[in-house]
Formats: sequence, C-alpha cells, structure tokens
Amino acid sequence: MSAVRVGIVGLGNVGSGTLRLLHGNAGQIASKLGFPLEVSAVCSRGVLASPPEAVSLHPAASRTANWKELVNSPDVDLVAELVGGTGVARKIVESAIDAGKPVITANKELMAEHGATILARARKRGAWVGLEASVAGGIPVLTALREGIAGDGIDTLIGILNGTSNYILTEIERTGAAFESVLRAAQDLGYAEADPSADIDGYDARSKLAILAALAFGVEVAPRQIPVEGIRRIRTIDFAYAGRLGHTIRLLATARQEPEGLRLAVRPSLVGVNTVLSGVIGSYNALWVHGQGGDTFYYGKGAGPAPTGVAVVSDLMAAARDLKTSGSQSAPPFGHVSLKPHAPVPGGTEVHQFYLRFRVRDRPGILASLTAALADQGVSVEAVLQEPHFDREDLPFVTTLEPTTRQALDSALDAMRGSDFLVDEPLAMPLEPTLMTS
Amino acid sequence: MSAVRVGIVGLGNVGSGTLRLLHGNAGQIASKLGFPLEVSAVCSRGVLASPPEAVSLHPAASRTANWKELVNSPDVDLVAELVGGTGVARKIVESAIDAGKPVITANKELMAEHGATILARARKRGAWVGLEASVAGGIPVLTALREGIAGDGIDTLIGILNGTSNYILTEIERTGAAFESVLRAAQDLGYAEADPSADIDGYDARSKLAILAALAFGVEVAPRQIPVEGIRRIRTIDFAYAGRLGHTIRLLATARQEPEGLRLAVRPSLVGVNTVLSGVIGSYNALWVHGQGGDTFYYGKGAGPAPTGVAVVSDLMAAARDLKTSGSQSAPPFGHVSLKPHAPVPGGTEVHQFYLRFRVRDRPGILASLTAALADQGVSVEAVLQEPHFDREDLPFVTTLEPTTRQALDSALDAMRGSDFLVDEPLAMPLEPTLMTS
Repeated sequence: MSAVRVGIVGLGNVGSGTLRLLHGNAGQIASKLGFPLEVSAVCSRGVLASPPEAVSLHPAASRTANWKELVNSPDVDLVAELVGGTGVARKIVESAIDAGKPVITANKELMAEHGATILARARKRGAWVGLEASVAGGIPVLTALREGIAGDGIDTLIGILNGTSNYILTEIERTGAAFESVLRAAQDLGYAEADPSADIDGYDARSKLAILAALAFGVEVAPRQIPVEGIRRIRTIDFAYAGRLGHTIRLLATARQEPEGLRLAVRPSLVGVNTVLSGVIGSYNALWVHGQGGDTFYYGKGAGPAPTGVAVVSDLMAAARDLKTSGSQSAPPFGHVSLKPHAPVPGGTEVHQFYLRFRVRDRPGILASLTAALADQGVSVEAVLQEPHFDREDLPFVTTLEPTTRQALDSALDAMRGSDFLVDEPLAMPLEPTLMTS
Repeated sequence: MSAVRVGIVGLGNVGSGTLRLLHGNAGQIASKLGFPLEVSAVCSRGVLASPPEAVSLHPAASRTANWKELVNSPDVDLVAELVGGTGVARKIVESAIDAGKPVITANKELMAEHGATILARARKRGAWVGLEASVAGGIPVLTALREGIAGDGIDTLIGILNGTSNYILTEIERTGAAFESVLRAAQDLGYAEADPSADIDGYDARSKLAILAALAFGVEVAPRQIPVEGIRRIRTIDFAYAGRLGHTIRLLATARQEPEGLRLAVRPSLVGVNTVLSGVIGSYNALWVHGQGGDTFYYGKGAGPAPTGVAVVSDLMAAARDLKTSGSQSAPPFGHVSLKPHAPVPGGTEVHQFYLRFRVRDRPGILASLTAALADQGVSVEAVLQEPHFDREDLPFVTTLEPTTRQALDSALDAMRGSDFLVDEPLAMPLEPTLMTS
C-alpha cells in the first residue's frame, strides 16, 4: 500500500526526536501498519538557513519556513504541530483541521486552554486530533484512559505530571540542599527554564490535569478553574518532618469524583513512603488511577525528545491507519463524543489530614496560642514535631492535624495572621490518604 | 444513535464482572461512544436453570445454553468469549469471526496457542478480535503496546504476569513461611487452583509472554518455544540470601531483542530491592518496557472480575465504535498486519550473573570441590554467603557468580551431579541487571 505522508511543523527537541524515530523505526512502523509513513515536508523558521541534523535523515522531505504552505500541501496527509504555545500553534492546528487533515500535537497548553473548541471543529470536519504527547511524554496515559480502560468508571486520578518540579523535590529529598540551590542547578543543567514559573508554580501540571479530567470524566475544564499551589515554599526541613511522619513530598495533580462533584487540585502533598508515588523520582512522571476495576499505575519519562517523539509517532500511526480505512475516526481525542462543562465544587470543603509547618521566633506560649486558634475553628492537633534546631529567631516546627476542612484550617490561619512571633505564613499541605502501596 | 448489541458467552467471574460494569457504567459508556452498548444475549451451560445474579441486571437479554444460537443471533452485533480453555472457546471465537462479528476474548491460552491462526481468519473476514483481557487483567498493556507506544522500537519487556505466583513469593518474603504452607493457604483462599501447576510452574505467564512478544516484536511465538522454570523450588532461605545481596525474588517473564535474535524466558530471578519490580506485591501484575523512548512501567490488578471486566468492556467499546464507523478496523489485535515466525535463539548463550544456592551435608572440602567444578568451566565465584544454620545434614549456602553463560553453568552443575554431599540439585537464578529504580 502507498505511504501516508507526514508534514512536521516545529523542529526543536520533540520535532527532531520524532524525525529520528520515523527514520530509525521505519521498517517496524511499516510492518505494524501494512504501509510506510513518509516524512514529506518539514517546517521551521530556521529550516532553510540551518536545518537541525535530524532533517537530513529525510532527504526527500521538502523544507519550508511557511507553515501554511506545509499544511495546505497536497503532499501532506497528516500534520504534526510541534511548535508549542497558543498563538501560531493554534492557527496551525485549526488550519490543518479545516483542510480535513488529522493533526497531532504535543501542546498541552493549547489543548488545555482551547481543546474543547478545537475538538468540536475537528469533529465537524471529520479530522482526528492526536494529543498523547501533550501529557506525561512517553507514558501512554491518554491512550490508556481513552481506550485501554475506557470501560472503567474512574473515581480518582493522582498524577505527578511535571518532571521539573519532581526533579527539584526529589533532589532536595536526596541531597538535603536548599530549594534555591537545587533550582539553580536544574537551570544550569537545562532541566528548568530561566523563568521556571510554569513548572514550579504548578501551571504546567494544571494544564495536563485539565486534559486528563476531560478524558477520565468527560468534562471541559478550563485550567483556571483548578486551584493550584506550587513548590516554592517547600524547604529542606519539610522533608525531614515528612520523613518522621513516614511520608515524603510530591507535587500532586488530583481529580476526585466526590458526591458534590468533581474536585480538582494541584498542590504539594505528603505521600506515604510505602506508596508507589513516593517511588517516582527525578524527572519521571506517573499517574495512578482508581476506578471500579481497582487501581492501575503508569510510570515513565514525562519529557524529552525520544519519549515525547514516541507519543507523536504513535499518534501519527493511529491517524494514518484511520486515513487508510476510508477516513473513519478513532476514539474521540478526549474519549467522549462531547464534554460537559465542569462545575467546580466549592473550595475548601473536602476533609484532609494536614501537615502544618510553622517558623517562629521562639518564646513561651506560642504553641498554646497556635493551638487555641486551631481549636477555635474546631481543628484538633494530632501531633507536634520539632527537630533539634538552634536558631531561636527562626525555629521551624510542625503540627499534624486531625481530619478537617481546608476552610476551617484557613480560618484558623487567618486568625494567626499578624502574630508577631510568626516568621512567615504557615505552610499547610494535605496528607494523601493511602494509595496502592508498592 | 442506535445501540450496539453484545452477546456474552461464559458467565463465570469475568462474565459476571462484565455484566456488572455494562450495567453500572452504562451512562458513561454511552457518553463516551455516542451510543449505548446493550447486552442482548447471555449464554452459559447453567443460565436457564440458575442464572448468576449479574444476569438480572440485564432483564432484556435473551438467555440460552447454546452458544451457537447466541453467536448467530441477528440480535447480537459483538460477541464476548469468556469461557476459557482451547476447546469450545476456539469454536465460539471462530464462529463469531465466520459470522463477521467482532469478538472479544479473555482467553490467554487460546490466543497464545492459536492467536496467529485466529487473527488471520479474522483479518480475512474483516472481524476484529479484542484480547486486552487476556494479559494482565485490568492493566491495559496490550493497548499500550499496540497503540500508546506503537511508535517505539522496543528492545526489552520484563513482566510479572502471574498473580498467584507473585502472591506466593511475596507472602514467603513477608511472612517467612514455607512455600508449601503459603501455597496451601492460597488454595484455601481461592487464590490458587487445586492443581496449581499452570500458575506456579510458569505456564500461564508463558502464554501471556507469547502474546506480549507478538505485540511488541511482531513475532508468532508458540508458548512451547519459550523456556520456562517455575517457583516450586524457591525456599524461604532464598529470600534471606537474596536480601543480603540487596535483592528479592520474582517470577519474571522476559523478552529481549539481542543481536542473535529475540530471547524469551520465564523464570524466577533476583531483582534489586530498589527497582520498581521489587515493589510489585501480592496478586498485582506489572510490565516494564524499554525502548528508544526510554522506559515505561504499567502496574495493576492482573485478575479478578472487575479488573478483567474493565478490559473486556473497553474492548467491546472499541469494537462497537468500529462497527459504527462503517466496519473499519482498529489496529490489528497483535499490533502488526502480520507476524513473522519466531526463531528461538540457542538457549544458554546469554550472559548473566547468577545466584546459586546449594544444600549440602556439611563436611570439609565441599566449597573447594564445588568451586573447582565451576572453575573447570571458566566460571568465577564472586561471593560466598552463609546464614547461620544448624542442620549440618542440610546446610544451605549461596554463591554468586561473575557473569557467565547458562551453558557454562549447566556444564558445571552436570559435573557436580551425584556428589554425595549434595542434598538436592543446586538452584540457579539469574540476577536481573539494573532496571529503572523506584
């Protein structure tokens, strides 16, 4: 059978990784599909002047700096958008759809912000959109949710979806170094951006959670509807205290189907050291899923040219197969023929055990004052932990709280605010209830 | 859109689990597909006299004890074969194919033994076969290999694919009880069959490995082509010695693309305690996959009505979607349009570090005699371990070997055979080289 012809827009790391895989695995891809995938065109701003090395693996591909030319070329059957961002990338994706061409994207920001609109347009035009590469890089979590466990009634997702923040947290855990120095080292190594906000403030994980929620629960979630806390305030001492509680700290993206509705959040949390999530170290990503069929867990590299390239190529293969079978459609990209709007449940009503870390100027009566503020809101202290520490002007200690609502806790924190013995705002993190143990 | 109608043959645990999910998740399934799945017929030998409870959830389904009637009914669009075995089950599957109906099966034995033949027949007839439920129950490993990471060039699979043997091994590990008593307890609890051979001698895992190899490497493997060793000879003391080496013991199904070819095996092996595989406990299953895109890891319940039911229902959804889109085909069930015959590589040529456990009648000179037999074959001892033990008539001790071939090791073991100080055959297990650490 004749080849299906692929056009690739965006030749950075992921684009180059995709080109290398399409070259290196060409034989295997053809034996899986029954026909070859051929790169017929590549596009990037600099491809004419200084093409990336991987372009030379596909000498027959035409080169252009004009994405419109590529998208509308009669020699391109499928388009991969590997540009990123929500500006030009959106135009590329929509133009491909309008041209009736399936389009593959690695763009979590675009799909989280405008996915539902884009997919409605694609559906109308009969063009499929592949987005496996947009979440958790090389781990096929979207395929798992959309196909592999489509028949499950999922009630809980817990993900570690941002490799940079997981790298930083687990480096602090491993080395005991301070947040700032680990971040700087990660930036020097190229693991973190010069402006690390998207990663360490949780926005990247939040976009990915919005996409996962669409697949698992059939809802259209705007990322801004998801409460988010990042990891900037985590200190080395928090790992010591968490360790004394048999826990460690991870930035978790959680989705829970509760009686009131679907509750979504991204925030640093305590996870038991004997759970599979505590075993996720460095830049690995993971997703734990619970439903009527029990629990499943997916683990792998969340980013990088080769892992993300695998996701792009796998989606290209699915789209190519669809084209060959008279243009029929695979499962809808978000797993549901249409999405319901997400109605966020009121914040703060869910019940958690909390870890609450204070930094104080030591003097008599502090504990009495703090626990009184908590008691006023009906919040009980479970335990008080204090590691040996010598700076009496900045003394950290931790209380763990009996299960309470975030609301009650926040009221108590409000009442404490302004106490002259507090060096800064107390840090509150929920303890994740028991997960599948490893 | 009108419903797609499902007929289910076999109403045991998995059949009942499937019926419960199709009832409980009906709304969600319809919102994913855009049309409902409806159970129009059920079949089992006893369904007329004493239908399982789950049948009552589908009062409109016709009931029959005659599978031919169900398969050929004009009211059945899709058939699920949940009978098991390779006799009637094969006839059911082939009849459904001949009737042009997609068929979903949970039958690893059938698919491992006759999968290629059945799939060729299905392909000719344009009927899709779904087999996600046949390997690792609720973990969508086949979908991952077939779709999610289809674009990867996979070089290694390592699986824990039999829940019963993993339960037994990890119970020995946890409690220190003897193999026989753990097996008996597992049988009492219904986790192990009265005849446990398929599980504990590795045959079940071997069938599943044959299926995984087809998906990952495009080869048609007969289970008997795969060398297999079970766990009967593992003793409590082996966990103690493995622990001293920083390892534990798991029954691993492995597939490795080596320069000589594809090497497949099922055998108990030592895995490092800091690897994700050592964290797989109880009846959980897991699969670790390595390819050009790095490594991914899949973990979950390998059996049970709900996990396996999720796999069946997910496949039914994919098949139903295909039917609605003018009968086109999803990815081929084994991920490749056709399979190459598997040419096993010669046994024993791969290089491993080995764990070698002896049981001896203690007397001077034993170690010299054993190490001489090893040295004669060019095999070097790395370390000798001996836990305190008081039965001088049955004294266990362990040597670890520098990397060597199984062939050389077997020649040395042959030379030792018949030594009057050996209480029984030495037990050799490979040490799995480092995997992704958890």
